[in-house]
Amino acid sequence: MVNLRDHDRVTGALAQVAGRLGWDQETVMPRGAAAQRGDEMAAMEAVLHARRSDPRLGEWLAAADTQAAEAQDKGLLRQIALYHDRACRVPGELASELARVTSLAQGVWAEARAAEDVAAFLPTLSRVVELRREEADALSAGRDLAPYDALLNDYEPGATQETLGAMFDALRPGLVQLREAIAGSGIETPTLPEHRFEPEVQLALASEIAGVFGYDLSRGRLDRAVHPFSSGSGADVRITTRTDATDPFNCLYSTIHEVGHACYEQTVAPEFALSALGQGASMGVHESQSRIYENQLGRSRAFTGWLYGRMRDTFGDFGVADPETFYRIVNRVAPGHIRTEADEVHYNLHVMLRFDLERRLIDGSLAVGDLEETWNSRFASDFGIAVDRPSHGLLQDVHWSVGLFGYFPTYTLGNVYAGCLNAAMRRDLPDLDAALARGETGEATTWLGRNLQQYGALHQPRALIELATGKPPEVAPLLEYLRAKFGDLYGLKLD
Amino acid sequence: MVNLRDHDRVTGALAQVAGRLGWDQETVMPRGAAAQRGDEMAAMEAVLHARRSDPRLGEWLAAADTQAAEAQDKGLLRQIALYHDRACRVPGELASELARVTSLAQGVWAEARAAEDVAAFLPTLSRVVELRREEADALSAGRDLAPYDALLNDYEPGATQETLGAMFDALRPGLVQLREAIAGSGIETPTLPEHRFEPEVQLALASEIAGVFGYDLSRGRLDRAVHPFSSGSGADVRITTRTDATDPFNCLYSTIHEVGHACYEQTVAPEFALSALGQGASMGVHESQSRIYENQLGRSRAFTGWLYGRMRDTFGDFGVADPETFYRIVNRVAPGHIRTEADEVHYNLHVMLRFDLERRLIDGSLAVGDLEETWNSRFASDFGIAVDRPSHGLLQDVHWSVGLFGYFPTYTLGNVYAGCLNAAMRRDLPDLDAALARGETGEATTWLGRNLQQYGALHQPRALIELATGKPPEVAPLLEYLRAKFGDLYGLKLD
Repeated sequence: MVNLRDHDRVTGALAQVAGRLGWDQETVMPRGAAAQRGDEMAAMEAVLHARRSDPRLGEWLAAADTQAAEAQDKGLLRQIALYHDRACRVPGELASELARVTSLAQGVWAEARAAEDVAAFLPTLSRVVELRREEADALSAGRDLAPYDALLNDYEPGATQETLGAMFDALRPGLVQLREAIAGSGIETPTLPEHRFEPEVQLALASEIAGVFGYDLSRGRLDRAVHPFSSGSGADVRITTRTDATDPFNCLYSTIHEVGHACYEQTVAPEFALSALGQGASMGVHESQSRIYENQLGRSRAFTGWLYGRMRDTFGDFGVADPETFYRIVNRVAPGHIRTEADEVHYNLHVMLRFDLERRLIDGSLAVGDLEETWNSRFASDFGIAVDRPSHGLLQDVHWSVGLFGYFPTYTLGNVYAGCLNAAMRRDLPDLDAALARGETGEATTWLGRNLQQYGALHQPRALIELATGKPPEVAPLLEYLRAKFGDLYGLKLD
Repeated sequence: MVNLRDHDRVTGALAQVAGRLGWDQETVMPRGAAAQRGDEMAAMEAVLHARRSDPRLGEWLAAADTQAAEAQDKGLLRQIALYHDRACRVPGELASELARVTSLAQGVWAEARAAEDVAAFLPTLSRVVELRREEADALSAGRDLAPYDALLNDYEPGATQETLGAMFDALRPGLVQLREAIAGSGIETPTLPEHRFEPEVQLALASEIAGVFGYDLSRGRLDRAVHPFSSGSGADVRITTRTDATDPFNCLYSTIHEVGHACYEQTVAPEFALSALGQGASMGVHESQSRIYENQLGRSRAFTGWLYGRMRDTFGDFGVADPETFYRIVNRVAPGHIRTEADEVHYNLHVMLRFDLERRLIDGSLAVGDLEETWNSRFASDFGIAVDRPSHGLLQDVHWSVGLFGYFPTYTLGNVYAGCLNAAMRRDLPDLDAALARGETGEATTWLGRNLQQYGALHQPRALIELATGKPPEVAPLLEYLRAKFGDLYGLKLD
């Protein structure tokens, strides 16, 4: 195990370096450096690929006595075997080329989005899709695994489009029913009055709230970027946010969301640092943390009561009369174009749209050239409103430009996990709301840290949720939570 | 050549990544990430060491026909052979350990400096000295080369302590004579009146002046750091500066200095990018650029006349009546503790002190425990003033903490080169002062770009200076420049 352990930690350190290049690109990189950055990313990917496909790993794995191994070693062996197998299947040149192309594609996407120019993006997207299909073929060759599922497994080990599809099918009717009941309730939720919220002041408040949720800024930092994200593991976990002078919730809730991701990484047991166990268990589990911080905690009536007070202290009278109105504004349900700004009822419908389209891009039944029209007609049918511009449609998310196919469904999976975790946490912490109302999240974050976050990637995703909640994951708790919360807000009688 | 070229460019890309980790550490890294960063630096150094010592490089180099090769290929083969030989001599574990220890040592030094606590720094410095001595032994083993010279060669290929020592001996009497003549002139140079120069405004002006000297911010950036530095090559060359609210020259002239380094890197021929030729020829040549930008151009009477006007526009009346007084303030000669703030007459005396002490640290005749006392007594004898606190003495520079032994003398060598280049440039550009007086540096920077910067590492340092100036480097032009400038300022009659 010593050889494996040492080799794995050095790989982990290099993966942190490569990840930080991504952070740098999104926050501080000079715009003229894009092409060189592509070469740098490709070179780092080649290094990582060579390490992960190192034949000695295969020998050491074969020699390791998994029967005798302790639980911690078993988990480590599983995770190393996973990346070793993956790297052995994908040619190094393809891995490098993907790193180069996606690094450049990100800039192309950002420019196309700013210019509302789908045509400027499509050739690049075609190339990314082509390379990822090639990779999916390499990953699934000779295995009973669909190419799309091979990609999905990068983000959610063990998941398939079938099991996720079944989960989404179970979820969808409940969401649609809830949405329609809300639309038919006749209740008009208030919106935020027009007011200017100074961006620098938003950032200062976001930084304070990050601390309230337990984010340790001595091992992280908060910067601005086009797309909010969390990056890094161990002692250097950085988050970004963005500001809109008329909508402070964009900044504040994206910060709380990213803090959920970042706190997960910061809470993984220190002895796992830089190893294959020193990171979240999967993207789905990761998203469960970001969503539970953002929604079940951050948008709860109790916490929004405290936040309302802090916003009054910070911004003065911003036209919202009382905490209950504030709570209703923060939880307003309405169809909209943007996934990241969607309410809890609509959010997963955005994800399902992407899930369905990206599967067809990867299986070849949908051409990139037809993507915009397909997106727009599906959107109109799902949401009842038309896409008015590309940045409100196909160009809104960075994911596909950087090759993240198979990633979107983990968002909804994360919401389902968050529902399960929230039910278990509320059962264990009956007085949580009293603490949240004082702006104290420690009880909740400690519960999540102890029951889930500390384990890093030691357990597989479903097993981890079961360990934390006592039950296998299921959609019911999320639906129950949503029905209770929005039933109350909109005075619904739901059967 | 194709194999060599491709291999070299990937190594170059990875070296850029490693260098940017250093930038990150000095500008944006969370303080709690220091230990992990040491592991990351060590892992990157191991990757670079493995690439540079790759046995295939030796085979390809042996097979390359250096006789038939074009000049460009000859230069590339020479540079690759240089790093290959170096990497083969130094054990990979030592290279990694040095990267880890110096990454951590930098933080220890910064804290010790802030606390004025030499004792807190010495154990770390001892370890760095020990590792670098070990490396120097590995580099010089079996060669007719002193260990210190092996380190020096990392920064200045072909230089030895003997040739540099002889050059410094030729320079020193002239500097001492000049300093004494100034002290005996009875002329008191004015100093900057007390005034507050808003740091953010200083930074904005520094950014403007960086542009005036040709620094391309679309391929770079300007940030604050404890120690001003320039970092990176090709399309991503970043500089840092620092601000002092009562002394804007600290910010402005350190910016011009770093811009000299950065413009050199930005002006190297694009076809050399990421290759072993895609960087400055040596640290001495690099310093010639930073010093000529800072001093021969930036502190000239012509340019300071323009700068005076811009500072009046920017800061209003700051208590300096006219451009001539401003010129005298900017060029005031007085002994001081800090190398980076020293005037042009004293600067090289600071370097000579360090050169003499660090040679003894490396040859073992001076123990780290005796360093402070030796520094302080040598300083008192050279400068006639006592060191009043460690941050004004031994702890002022970051260099030794990060293992840069053999680096300091390249500063004085750079001044000597700058003297040669300035004489040749002034001969070719008789009307330069008229342009500088309008804040136009283009004639000068174009001259430097065409005659020197574009070549990158194609030529060896002395050959490059000869190519640019038509003569081998010598100390006389620097001394003549200093005597003319300060003789005029202080009304001296020098024989």
